[in-house]
Amino acid sequence: MQKPFEITVLGTSSATPTRDRNPSAQYVRLDKHYFLIDCGEATQLQLTKYNLRLQKIKYVLISHLHGDHYFGLPGLVTSMALFGRVDPLYIVCPADLKPIMDAILTIGDAHMNFEIHYIFTNPNDVETILDEDDFSIHTIPLKHRIPCTGFVIEEKGPERKINLEACERYEIPVSFYEKLKWGEDFKGQSGIEIANELLTFQGYKNRKFAYISDTIYDETIVPNISDVTLLYHEATFLHDRLQRAQETFHTTALQAGQIAKLANAKNLMIGHYSARYSDLEPLLLEAKKIHLETYLAIEGEVFQLNS
Amino acid sequence: MQKPFEITVLGTSSATPTRDRNPSAQYVRLDKHYFLIDCGEATQLQLTKYNLRLQKIKYVLISHLHGDHYFGLPGLVTSMALFGRVDPLYIVCPADLKPIMDAILTIGDAHMNFEIHYIFTNPNDVETILDEDDFSIHTIPLKHRIPCTGFVIEEKGPERKINLEACERYEIPVSFYEKLKWGEDFKGQSGIEIANELLTFQGYKNRKFAYISDTIYDETIVPNISDVTLLYHEATFLHDRLQRAQETFHTTALQAGQIAKLANAKNLMIGHYSARYSDLEPLLLEAKKIHLETYLAIEGEVFQLNS
Repeated sequence: MQKPFEITVLGTSSATPTRDRNPSAQYVRLDKHYFLIDCGEATQLQLTKYNLRLQKIKYVLISHLHGDHYFGLPGLVTSMALFGRVDPLYIVCPADLKPIMDAILTIGDAHMNFEIHYIFTNPNDVETILDEDDFSIHTIPLKHRIPCTGFVIEEKGPERKINLEACERYEIPVSFYEKLKWGEDFKGQSGIEIANELLTFQGYKNRKFAYISDTIYDETIVPNISDVTLLYHEATFLHDRLQRAQETFHTTALQAGQIAKLANAKNLMIGHYSARYSDLEPLLLEAKKIHLETYLAIEGEVFQLNS
Repeated sequence: MQKPFEITVLGTSSATPTRDRNPSAQYVRLDKHYFLIDCGEATQLQLTKYNLRLQKIKYVLISHLHGDHYFGLPGLVTSMALFGRVDPLYIVCPADLKPIMDAILTIGDAHMNFEIHYIFTNPNDVETILDEDDFSIHTIPLKHRIPCTGFVIEEKGPERKINLEACERYEIPVSFYEKLKWGEDFKGQSGIEIANELLTFQGYKNRKFAYISDTIYDETIVPNISDVTLLYHEATFLHDRLQRAQETFHTTALQAGQIAKLANAKNLMIGHYSARYSDLEPLLLEAKKIHLETYLAIEGEVFQLNS
């Protein structure tokens, strides 16, 4: 069984919430790691609604400082404190967020028994902001009205499985198995070399999730999201409103499909819908014309990433 | 028919939202005036849910700067802007809120086509902060962990109705009728004086709504809320948790009943319930023991004030 890597959608609206749609937020689980990407107003209420544990979240990633992407953060953080959190929280965000959070927590006399570590995003260059044993996170500059970054969460792990029969036949020491799993060829003391493929099977490929919101259509991001398992890309408008999309630095559903196709994304999830669309089916159909494996982000839905 | 004076409850939780309860907010209509008192996270979603118009709100009153009383304000204001508001908005609040709002609006590059006028509350003295032709608002210092004020919204208008038959009999000029409605005695040019009661009937008494949250039990507020038509008073705990209430500067349901009784409040509405109570009936019963006309604040319920 592959480790869990799943996205729970908490909000899909753009700019303002609607009767049925909350502002942007996604809860991401990768094995034992829990992330929140964007945190629109009422995200903590959505977490409760979908039975997701607030305190498990260790990393909060904020794409940019339009309110529909972060107005839920002060409430999330103060609730973490009120519920007795002691574990540190990592907030990955534009630098301008910190003084606002500091002022809010100071003025409210919040009793914080945990540390907040801020990691500031760079809106101009691709950067590795976290590089852990089993995952990494990169930021990607996006083109929006204010500084904005996308995020790529990438699984790291051995992709080969031991071929026990072959390993025994070649008398490979068990101590070398871990290296084999990571794809190394065997090199014996006698100088013998045995190609990894003779000793292993293809295991699970590492998975990759890219979160791209908000941005105008921008092909320069493609090399940074190539071969993603799941691409979340904003699709604020239908393509008949291309001009409006360009004016507001947003993307159409058709264009989201194009980015997914160019990036060879396995799956595409679209979201960040304009309030003008009560029926989302036309957005889905438009993206599917370009990239068949497209899905609608819907509040409460869970997307499993499989290699 | 008396002019509408009604309170719609938008949130009743204390500190953190729960599965069923939102943080504090009340939507108040007094005739053609619309007020929002406190604005916890997701208040704008509650307004939509209950079909209340965001743009009608002219005055937002914020009691204090704990997040459960104002974290919905940035979202409310930016949505007002996104929906094209041009009418000014008046925010009555502690002075520390302004720099936070300014920073949020600047950083988010909000396109504001309306003015925000801030009126800063004084946590130390009773103050009249608005005095219009047909209503006034006073603030009352409350005793909480951080500076906090309660609010009294008071209707202003003539309370007497013309007794036509009597006025004709005494030959009162019609031009004097307006003064009679406001309770003046008639003074003729000849020096004649006729007592108002001979010329008028009792009309509708002006109504008064007091909003008292958050505070420790404090009898010093009583003179400032005497004879209110409706007293909203926080009742975070049952009285068996008096010590906890005192430590956290909150009130018990029994104490809320006592304040209502001392103030001779016509009706009491309690709210701001601790998350520990899923069943609110015990809180209601406890307050009713002291003040019979007590009601529970419940999300979506509307309370009409009648003289």
